[in-house]
Amino acid sequence: MIEMKHLPLGKLPMNTLKKCVLSHVIVDSSVLLPPRVGEDGTVLKLSDNLIIAAADPITGATEKAGWLSVHVNANDVAVHAAYPRWFLVTILLPEGANEPLIEDIMNGILKALREVDACLVGGHTEVTSRVVEPVIVGTMIGEPMIKGMYITSGGAEPGDAIILTKGAGIEGTLILATDFKERLQKEVGEDVLNRALMYERMISVLPDVKQIIKVGIENVTSMHDATEGGVLGAVYELAEASGRGFLIYEDKVIINPETRRICEVLKVDPLKLISSGSLIATVKKNKAKEAIALLRAAGIRAAVIGKILERPSERILVRRNGEEVSLKEPPLDELWRLYETNE
Amino acid sequence: MIEMKHLPLGKLPMNTLKKCVLSHVIVDSSVLLPPRVGEDGTVLKLSDNLIIAAADPITGATEKAGWLSVHVNANDVAVHAAYPRWFLVTILLPEGANEPLIEDIMNGILKALREVDACLVGGHTEVTSRVVEPVIVGTMIGEPMIKGMYITSGGAEPGDAIILTKGAGIEGTLILATDFKERLQKEVGEDVLNRALMYERMISVLPDVKQIIKVGIENVTSMHDATEGGVLGAVYELAEASGRGFLIYEDKVIINPETRRICEVLKVDPLKLISSGSLIATVKKNKAKEAIALLRAAGIRAAVIGKILERPSERILVRRNGEEVSLKEPPLDELWRLYETNE
Repeated sequence: MIEMKHLPLGKLPMNTLKKCVLSHVIVDSSVLLPPRVGEDGTVLKLSDNLIIAAADPITGATEKAGWLSVHVNANDVAVHAAYPRWFLVTILLPEGANEPLIEDIMNGILKALREVDACLVGGHTEVTSRVVEPVIVGTMIGEPMIKGMYITSGGAEPGDAIILTKGAGIEGTLILATDFKERLQKEVGEDVLNRALMYERMISVLPDVKQIIKVGIENVTSMHDATEGGVLGAVYELAEASGRGFLIYEDKVIINPETRRICEVLKVDPLKLISSGSLIATVKKNKAKEAIALLRAAGIRAAVIGKILERPSERILVRRNGEEVSLKEPPLDELWRLYETNE
Repeated sequence: MIEMKHLPLGKLPMNTLKKCVLSHVIVDSSVLLPPRVGEDGTVLKLSDNLIIAAADPITGATEKAGWLSVHVNANDVAVHAAYPRWFLVTILLPEGANEPLIEDIMNGILKALREVDACLVGGHTEVTSRVVEPVIVGTMIGEPMIKGMYITSGGAEPGDAIILTKGAGIEGTLILATDFKERLQKEVGEDVLNRALMYERMISVLPDVKQIIKVGIENVTSMHDATEGGVLGAVYELAEASGRGFLIYEDKVIINPETRRICEVLKVDPLKLISSGSLIATVKKNKAKEAIALLRAAGIRAAVIGKILERPSERILVRRNGEEVSLKEPPLDELWRLYETNE
């Protein structure tokens, strides 16, 4: 039975820990020592001698926050051409938290772990006066998709094609549809809004990575997912990590109809809008067509949006009207600008 | 130059990130992809096909909080007979945080990483309104000390000797000496207090583990470090994980002079006082003497404090006066009791 009453400060009471957390643990045969009372670590059996790891926090009291904490970390692992395999999560709850709150967050975590096929192997849950809203800090550990091989943001070479999957502002469209629901209901209509809310299904780049490396992992020179700063920010960061420049064409960037409408109404540039779920990859020029075909065959929209240039001083966005904009620094995310303006 | 002014909400500005975090990164040749701007994950090269991982949070704004966040996680890895190797850290800072605060926390993290010989390989640092004090969430990944082998809390067998290293209430003595400084200065004197503050040097169980497994890892049946609930809590958890009982003798538990004096004054039971740094290990009876000798030769106090019993219903503490106390559940840590009484 789920208790509605407030949990005490400190580590979870053992019953709550067992009922709300440990009973849900997902493991497979790679987890030699699963999380349990009295064990503080986990033991994992690998099939490679490389691992890929990433850590990121999410705040929020909902199932969606738990779900997102898995996907942001799984994406950070996937872009290195690795399968997310093992998740450790530290959940810090504010005073007054109760069991249903933990259940919501755990449900989200478990849903996402099933989606990316990873195990929950460890962590810590605590009620503390130091946070005013639940804070979920995840660490994802993964293994290379191809034994001994990995991809970074820093391998792009001059002439490589820059590929974008799904579209610009995927995550941002979802966030705006949620946060400006009432206004958008009036201005873009129920249908557009509902389709925007379904962008949730596009948040993982794992399927995109699985397809793209089928052109041969040696032909994929770099990958990055488009978080803060959106597609333009991700291309900028990838070029910076590679010590190169780029040329991208606004009119080649995929903008989905819902993103276009919502961005028009809120006066937001979709190219600079946070876009977890969009993969930016550079592939050798002669493999670009094959990569796009593989992605599309798997039902994932994809386009070549530009190419890598040799000199880091040449970072150019060609606007739809032909104007060439030279970028000297990564763009500020449109979400920050929007929320500051609205405060 | 270190900026005193408040940092903006959100991810750290790139300059601050480079100056206060990335410039300090410690890596060795096992880190194929070190943390850098534009890379969201790390790639690690292993020498075994097992890894051990653990995650735990620490709150606090000081160098000591950063330092402790490494050691608590390193301890959780070490008790599985593994070397802590790679650390990922998520630092959440409250509004108003500035660069010197990050420097303090990072200094502590780096000091501890040098002490346990581990690398800083990833993480995330952010200023957020969701925390009211810095929250440091660490994940430590380690490798077995002996290829393919590990120890858990759950392997204790009837007749095994229960070994305690260093003494009861190590971490608690340090915490009490810090929190009740003024009162203790008067009641126990400057000398005792200063020696208690030096217990910091005993916080890692890694040296203890390195020694004890020299009796042959197959002869060490379980290990646990004594966090919340102290020595008694750790023995209880280890017995619970092993499905066994125990018999321990209060008069065999090492109580260091500073711990004894401070606990007397504050009316605290040192056996139930948080004790990171104290290792609880069970070893086969005929190896106990050798284990104690190995620890002492390395300058680590150690004693056999009791033995494992077959039935989980028999969990007995023999008090100094001969009274037998039967434990039905793990003890509440004395720190919680003390702070509640003092509120």
